[in-house]
Amino acid sequence: MGAQSNGTNGTCSTSTSVGLKSIKPFFPSPATTNASENASESPAVTSIIKSLNLIPHIEGGYFAETDRATDTVPSPFPLETHSTGTTELAPQRPGFDPAVRNSSTSIHYYLTPSGPQGGFHRNKARTVHTLHKGRGKYVIIHADEPDMKDGKRRVEVFTVGHDVAAGEKLQWIVEGGKFKGTFLLPDREGGSESEGLLISETVVPGFEYCDHDFLSRQHLVDLLGEEGEKELGWLLSPLASGLDKP
Amino acid sequence: MGAQSNGTNGTCSTSTSVGLKSIKPFFPSPATTNASENASESPAVTSIIKSLNLIPHIEGGYFAETDRATDTVPSPFPLETHSTGTTELAPQRPGFDPAVRNSSTSIHYYLTPSGPQGGFHRNKARTVHTLHKGRGKYVIIHADEPDMKDGKRRVEVFTVGHDVAAGEKLQWIVEGGKFKGTFLLPDREGGSESEGLLISETVVPGFEYCDHDFLSRQHLVDLLGEEGEKELGWLLSPLASGLDKP
Repeated sequence: MGAQSNGTNGTCSTSTSVGLKSIKPFFPSPATTNASENASESPAVTSIIKSLNLIPHIEGGYFAETDRATDTVPSPFPLETHSTGTTELAPQRPGFDPAVRNSSTSIHYYLTPSGPQGGFHRNKARTVHTLHKGRGKYVIIHADEPDMKDGKRRVEVFTVGHDVAAGEKLQWIVEGGKFKGTFLLPDREGGSESEGLLISETVVPGFEYCDHDFLSRQHLVDLLGEEGEKELGWLLSPLASGLDKP
Repeated sequence: MGAQSNGTNGTCSTSTSVGLKSIKPFFPSPATTNASENASESPAVTSIIKSLNLIPHIEGGYFAETDRATDTVPSPFPLETHSTGTTELAPQRPGFDPAVRNSSTSIHYYLTPSGPQGGFHRNKARTVHTLHKGRGKYVIIHADEPDMKDGKRRVEVFTVGHDVAAGEKLQWIVEGGKFKGTFLLPDREGGSESEGLLISETVVPGFEYCDHDFLSRQHLVDLLGEEGEKELGWLLSPLASGLDKP
């Protein structure tokens, strides 16, 4: 059956800091914190946002929570909160019990030409991603693994899209504890247009903001060195800029 | 946020036995038990089957298990097995412990013009479905609910596809205990061609054959009456034909 149980494998490249130079945004990084309700989107993109009731996401792009299983499991995570950046931004849900989690939650997530990137963040839970529409690049920093020989953490890069014969991915798993950044690519290799990258994400056990944190600039330096920060700093969340302040 | 936590909702119709007459296959039902390795598929379909390492599925169509989370949760299901039809067909995995389940499993599932339908079956666990490619119809028999006023169970029908503005679904949840049947539609409304319906399914907690069973012809009569069986019998799994024998 060929089960791929080790998550973000497949047609990926493990990069040294030299290789990181090749990771560049295609659509301009947004100047503002996140996609705005007033952002100028094409009619096709606007139609999808309206049909799926999407709203701007704090990581960049748009989203909607589409499912939260009502059954619960004991939380597999330590009770202390190490979340940075988001605890104040997104208060706990009413009735939240930190000792349990919903068995799963799902969202739609949508990057668009006006909201073309999702900044580095991680979750304690593992996430199953599936592609509906468009193309994009994922950059995974394996913060949960030991340093490599060069003293830096492993970085993995892969393309998601419908061209499975060319190695693009329709389904990809990101294990808990890894920082994930995402950016939009043109709908066709060599093209310049995009109607956005639309995916589903299913988090097991279910999503809670206290299990989520952003990567700060200093933490990126700790993981990949000054050189790595120069190459990938553009993919930090704008919300992470306040995290290094005392 | 508009969370849709009640599963198979949205642009669906609850049908009486009269309404069931409108549910007809578009592509001919297969004469054989399931998609054959030798089935005649188009080059585009064959390319996807090869790229994703798909194999014929006992329910019809093709599939591959793509992920099985290594962490486990206590099984929420009674230990006794009520599985029909599949226990003998698909032996338990080596090392399977009926008291626990993997926290989730995922597959790709693919209906094609030569393997255009998946027969009625149910799982004790709930399943998150997400669409990659193509269009199809889902028929859900709510076997876990009480009879309606007419003495029959509720039937729900909806279309999955990329035209979200027209109410087609990109993501749909089927709760445990409900029988699900699926069939292929043309890629475009009013068209006649299809390159197949390709989806992902994530089961929470993870899939085991002992949690799965087929709908037998007699059970379909019990749920929807003789008239319902006449209208929807074509969507029974060929494997279900042996289930009513003593």
